[in-house]
Amino acid sequence: MLKHLLPQELGFFDLFEKQADLAVEGAKLLAEFVQDLEAPGTKAHRIEEVEHQADVITHQTIEMLHKTFITPFDREAIHRLISAMDDILDAIEAASERLWLYEVTVTTTHAKEIAQVLRQATEQLRIAVVGIRNLKRDGKAIKAACVDVNRLENEGDEALRQGLAKLFREEKDPLVVMKWKEIYENMEQGTDRCEDVADVIEGLLLENE
Amino acid sequence: MLKHLLPQELGFFDLFEKQADLAVEGAKLLAEFVQDLEAPGTKAHRIEEVEHQADVITHQTIEMLHKTFITPFDREAIHRLISAMDDILDAIEAASERLWLYEVTVTTTHAKEIAQVLRQATEQLRIAVVGIRNLKRDGKAIKAACVDVNRLENEGDEALRQGLAKLFREEKDPLVVMKWKEIYENMEQGTDRCEDVADVIEGLLLENE
Amino acid sequence: MLKHLLPQELGFFDLFEKQADLAVEGAKLLAEFVQDLEAPGTKAHRIEEVEHQADVITHQTIEMLHKTFITPFDREAIHRLISAMDDILDAIEAASERLWLYEVTVTTTHAKEIAQVLRQATEQLRIAVVGIRNLKRDGKAIKAACVDVNRLENEGDEALRQGLAKLFREEKDPLVVMKWKEIYENMEQGTDRCEDVADVIEGLLLENE
Repeated sequence: MLKHLLPQELGFFDLFEKQADLAVEGAKLLAEFVQDLEAPGTKAHRIEEVEHQADVITHQTIEMLHKTFITPFDREAIHRLISAMDDILDAIEAASERLWLYEVTVTTTHAKEIAQVLRQATEQLRIAVVGIRNLKRDGKAIKAACVDVNRLENEGDEALRQGLAKLFREEKDPLVVMKWKEIYENMEQGTDRCEDVADVIEGLLLENE
Repeated sequence: MLKHLLPQELGFFDLFEKQADLAVEGAKLLAEFVQDLEAPGTKAHRIEEVEHQADVITHQTIEMLHKTFITPFDREAIHRLISAMDDILDAIEAASERLWLYEVTVTTTHAKEIAQVLRQATEQLRIAVVGIRNLKRDGKAIKAACVDVNRLENEGDEALRQGLAKLFREEKDPLVVMKWKEIYENMEQGTDRCEDVADVIEGLLLENE
Repeated sequence: MLKHLLPQELGFFDLFEKQADLAVEGAKLLAEFVQDLEAPGTKAHRIEEVEHQADVITHQTIEMLHKTFITPFDREAIHRLISAMDDILDAIEAASERLWLYEVTVTTTHAKEIAQVLRQATEQLRIAVVGIRNLKRDGKAIKAACVDVNRLENEGDEALRQGLAKLFREEKDPLVVMKWKEIYENMEQGTDRCEDVADVIEGLLLENE
């Protein structure tokens, strides 16, 4: 059904934007899930659907690479850009699925914080991705958004560390420590992957200035 | 002694195939090890030998890059292809060594399942690697094999998640949970590295169509 | 204030060398920290400062890429080289911060061993990085240093494995196992990142011979 949303006329930039939209959507759903752990199966399945849509966009982009002679920038960069955005949703889904499968029932302050940072990182990343339609004109705004993504990645890392310190200090059940540790880390890896996408985009800026 | 098997005349494609054969061999030995945990030291050492052979092929390939003026495709891609195949065997050896060092004595259904998926992924990958001798002629078959590798990577990921859920639900000893978690993850990372190799090969397809 | 240390006249090779110096400095401080766990906050903060200096060098390098028309080798490689060196200090800081945050009080033989291997790897890496000013003239020495980095990465991996085996065999508190496991792994990832830098440099050798 996604096919209806993606008519032939869609170009690479439309696909990138759609993928960035899905990252924002997935991160928003994850932040809501972490806020309220009720109905985990339903929530995890919704996030899984978003991740599947991202897979479709990824494959559609690679198909288009096969069929297109002239691409907006080099093929390798397009391949890396779409794959790295796909990786963001893989990290989001990994966190979401573990929340469900590990039967986690009580949320934590740091889980909510890391999820918020990830949500903000996807929003800044979306600005950068939308900007690449006009690399030269929007260079400054793109660069600012990439700097923000890097800053948020650092914030996510710090929230992860504080969260882990608190877990090891206060939680007595080693299995609960292991569960949250992995979920925190999955979410933080989502922000790492946002940084990877920002790196690809910064590379495009470097090559096209 | 491997030198006898690798006369000067061997070209890049022979080295790639030999490396892919070693990945298949390593994954097969690991699947057998996980099936039956008897004599762990002997089994881990056999897998270590296969991994060392892959190291030799990697270095031989890089030496050949130094000495060869005209290469079948760009040097960077050759470097990435052989390194990523080396990484598959590193992941296999990591799982195998941990089975031995952690003194794991009772196997699990999910360990066997993930090991089987990894074995299948290396077999599909071998088809893709053999195909690159004739990128244009065998493009379709290579692409199909790469799609299979991606599908198997997803299956491995799912088996990992189910395996982890079961561990956390049923296993009471946190140290046993930690041991199997790491071994499951090492094996699943083997399938991730198979996907990395498939990505490099898909890149070659894109550049040569 | 680092700006004073980095006048405009500094070129790419100066920045690379400065970054390599910081990796050596960070690894030395970490080895001392692991040797003696007294005053963890002070020690972790000193390593954090070194890591921040590396961030500054990274951004300065990328700025210079923006402003420079002719670069000593291709822009992408410069970007990867400086980022990968940054990653070494990220790994060092991750280990250091965990030593502090997890309130680890008793050190281990294997922690000291892995930290020493990491220190040696950064020293060999520095030789390779200094050498790239004269890729052709110093090719042999660079290659030898890269081979050493690879050897040390293998040693680090082996020390990690032995350290984990001992932890799982002898340590009864699962939380202590988890803490050291992560710190060992962070340090070993530092040596992996050294190997990544060596790989970039070996790529430069391949492209420039």
